[in-house]
Amino acid sequence: MTRFAFDIHATDGRARTGEIRMERGTIRTPAFMPVGTAATVKGMKPEAVRATGADIILGNTYHLMLRPGAERVARLGGLHRFMNWSRPILTDSGGYQVMSLSDLRKITEEGVTFASHLDGSRHLLTPERSMEIQRLLDSDIVMAFDECPKVDQGRDAIARSMEMSMRWARRSRNAFDSGGEHAGRAALFGIQQGGLDEELRRASAEALAEVGFDGYAIGGLAVGEGQEAMFATLDFAPAQLPADRPRYLMGVGKPDDLVGAVERGVDMFDCVLPTRSGRNGQAFTWSGPLNLRNARHAEDLGPVDDRCHCPTCGTYSRAYLHHLIKSGEMLGAMLLTEHNLSFYQQLMQAMRAAIAEKRFAAFVLQFRSDYFARG
Amino acid sequence: MTRFAFDIHATDGRARTGEIRMERGTIRTPAFMPVGTAATVKGMKPEAVRATGADIILGNTYHLMLRPGAERVARLGGLHRFMNWSRPILTDSGGYQVMSLSDLRKITEEGVTFASHLDGSRHLLTPERSMEIQRLLDSDIVMAFDECPKVDQGRDAIARSMEMSMRWARRSRNAFDSGGEHAGRAALFGIQQGGLDEELRRASAEALAEVGFDGYAIGGLAVGEGQEAMFATLDFAPAQLPADRPRYLMGVGKPDDLVGAVERGVDMFDCVLPTRSGRNGQAFTWSGPLNLRNARHAEDLGPVDDRCHCPTCGTYSRAYLHHLIKSGEMLGAMLLTEHNLSFYQQLMQAMRAAIAEKRFAAFVLQFRSDYFARG
Repeated sequence: MTRFAFDIHATDGRARTGEIRMERGTIRTPAFMPVGTAATVKGMKPEAVRATGADIILGNTYHLMLRPGAERVARLGGLHRFMNWSRPILTDSGGYQVMSLSDLRKITEEGVTFASHLDGSRHLLTPERSMEIQRLLDSDIVMAFDECPKVDQGRDAIARSMEMSMRWARRSRNAFDSGGEHAGRAALFGIQQGGLDEELRRASAEALAEVGFDGYAIGGLAVGEGQEAMFATLDFAPAQLPADRPRYLMGVGKPDDLVGAVERGVDMFDCVLPTRSGRNGQAFTWSGPLNLRNARHAEDLGPVDDRCHCPTCGTYSRAYLHHLIKSGEMLGAMLLTEHNLSFYQQLMQAMRAAIAEKRFAAFVLQFRSDYFARG
Repeated sequence: MTRFAFDIHATDGRARTGEIRMERGTIRTPAFMPVGTAATVKGMKPEAVRATGADIILGNTYHLMLRPGAERVARLGGLHRFMNWSRPILTDSGGYQVMSLSDLRKITEEGVTFASHLDGSRHLLTPERSMEIQRLLDSDIVMAFDECPKVDQGRDAIARSMEMSMRWARRSRNAFDSGGEHAGRAALFGIQQGGLDEELRRASAEALAEVGFDGYAIGGLAVGEGQEAMFATLDFAPAQLPADRPRYLMGVGKPDDLVGAVERGVDMFDCVLPTRSGRNGQAFTWSGPLNLRNARHAEDLGPVDDRCHCPTCGTYSRAYLHHLIKSGEMLGAMLLTEHNLSFYQQLMQAMRAAIAEKRFAAFVLQFRSDYFARG
């Protein structure tokens, strides 16, 4: 069995397409990973998630350590069995959510002490504990524990934070490697930090490469800096990372973010946007986003997107979805989540095909023309 | 094509099993109809509802007339196309929900004036308008418009209400019959009233039989009188109705209610209990109801019910369902709704088989022994 292999099948400009092979399955890249925060992709059965074309999903260490608890998941046979998803799962390290969700955080060189947003209970998350939790969950792709600083801090603060994250990356590597049998079948990714600064990003990339990881994430983006600043950073950040390893842009993004990031050499993504937006009545389409709450859909017998192959578009009218969303019916959230996840996978598949056929630039032009054309 | 035919294949004591044949499909009796209030069985795709074994679902006139509106549903091609359910749909008359949900009701011989619980808008519901709405929805089984009085009113009030409902039943019949092409393929059921009083029930049954309906509902029960009083009423009420027509006990009930009512000659049921309870974390099983919120399920790898054939029981542990319900995850509501609807259909199927094989009394004894045995 292959623990972790990444093969690039084709490149077109900076864009790449290929596959990651792991024991639990193959991940076609560029890949979009649906977010399954609390051991469920909200509103979807796992077989339906797979049917959208997802090769891998993401689980959140922060949420799972608090409920149901990592030791409990381990006693129940691991996250895959618990939630009935047999393919690869990537778990984040908890670092980002501790900063965005918990109360009373205290950061030291040792790690982060925080209070649970659920019950106020105190917890300490360190690189070593994060690795232990991800091992207890039986994660396939483990993320190093890092600090994700706010983008509007000064350069010195961003630099100090990045340097600590690089020390935590080393500690994550050591803890992961001492994880016994799990280390023999899981992969470990490092996370580049350094804000929007090219030199800090380079220093971070060099520190990570010296430790050595199976893949490299670009962290600290999509935190409010805007698409222009994100793309400007992606003009240099991916190329600083080892070319033969997957590059994972964390927490991104809108369809046009994904296209622009693939254009700049990114291979993997995750984001709550398709699931969260679906629950709120927003659908993504080849013609741009669509708010199904809008009264103009009330008697529209057409599908959400007439180019989409998902079950929602093949079966239900905009009029019906409008009714469900206006009525607060669960089925509206379910059907739009399924559509959005399916649309995201169709977008990734279209990008993979365009790169393989060396027509990615033309694809991007056409995508933007269609996506931003709606009046 | 058969507009409406009811064939009793076997009887055992007062229990009967058979089938209703209609243009849109056959309904095996005794039948349980899942409730699809607002053009959706909450949390279920229609194909999953069908997969539980449901031959027919129920839609609510009151909800649909207010949102999205009966004329709108008609413009969109009718309720079946709107919600993607091609088999029979029974619609209630709106009478019960007007009394239980709306504000500012005023009842006259003409009908009921009320204010919408959604936006306060004023509406008049009469036998004629109820028939028109159910025709616009393209209902397969139309219910006569009636008043459902509170069970704790005095005999005189119950009698006066029943007598008005019988006049409304006549008006419903006349309005239904003038519905043109729809009357040629839909069925109309009358609704017996009269509270818990045998003589009033008899008078109501005679008035309905004189008008003539395709089937007869027993209304005005399951409104707080308790199982003992309901069963006492069912000891005489079904036999007062024409034996060759289906008998439908509206709004019932718990699994043991269904068994006791089938034992007393009832053929059809509807109830929100399996769907509503599922959303709240309660599962029905052959061993009685089970609250998945209970901490004792937190590490239980067993299924909700090891005798159940539903996808939830075949795939997920009590521990996972406990986690989903505790976390407020949609998937918990979805999986328990699917289990409960499937369990109800398995219960109906078991009753149909037991009646057909003339072993219904033994089935009932075993059911009660199992269902009430849990400590």
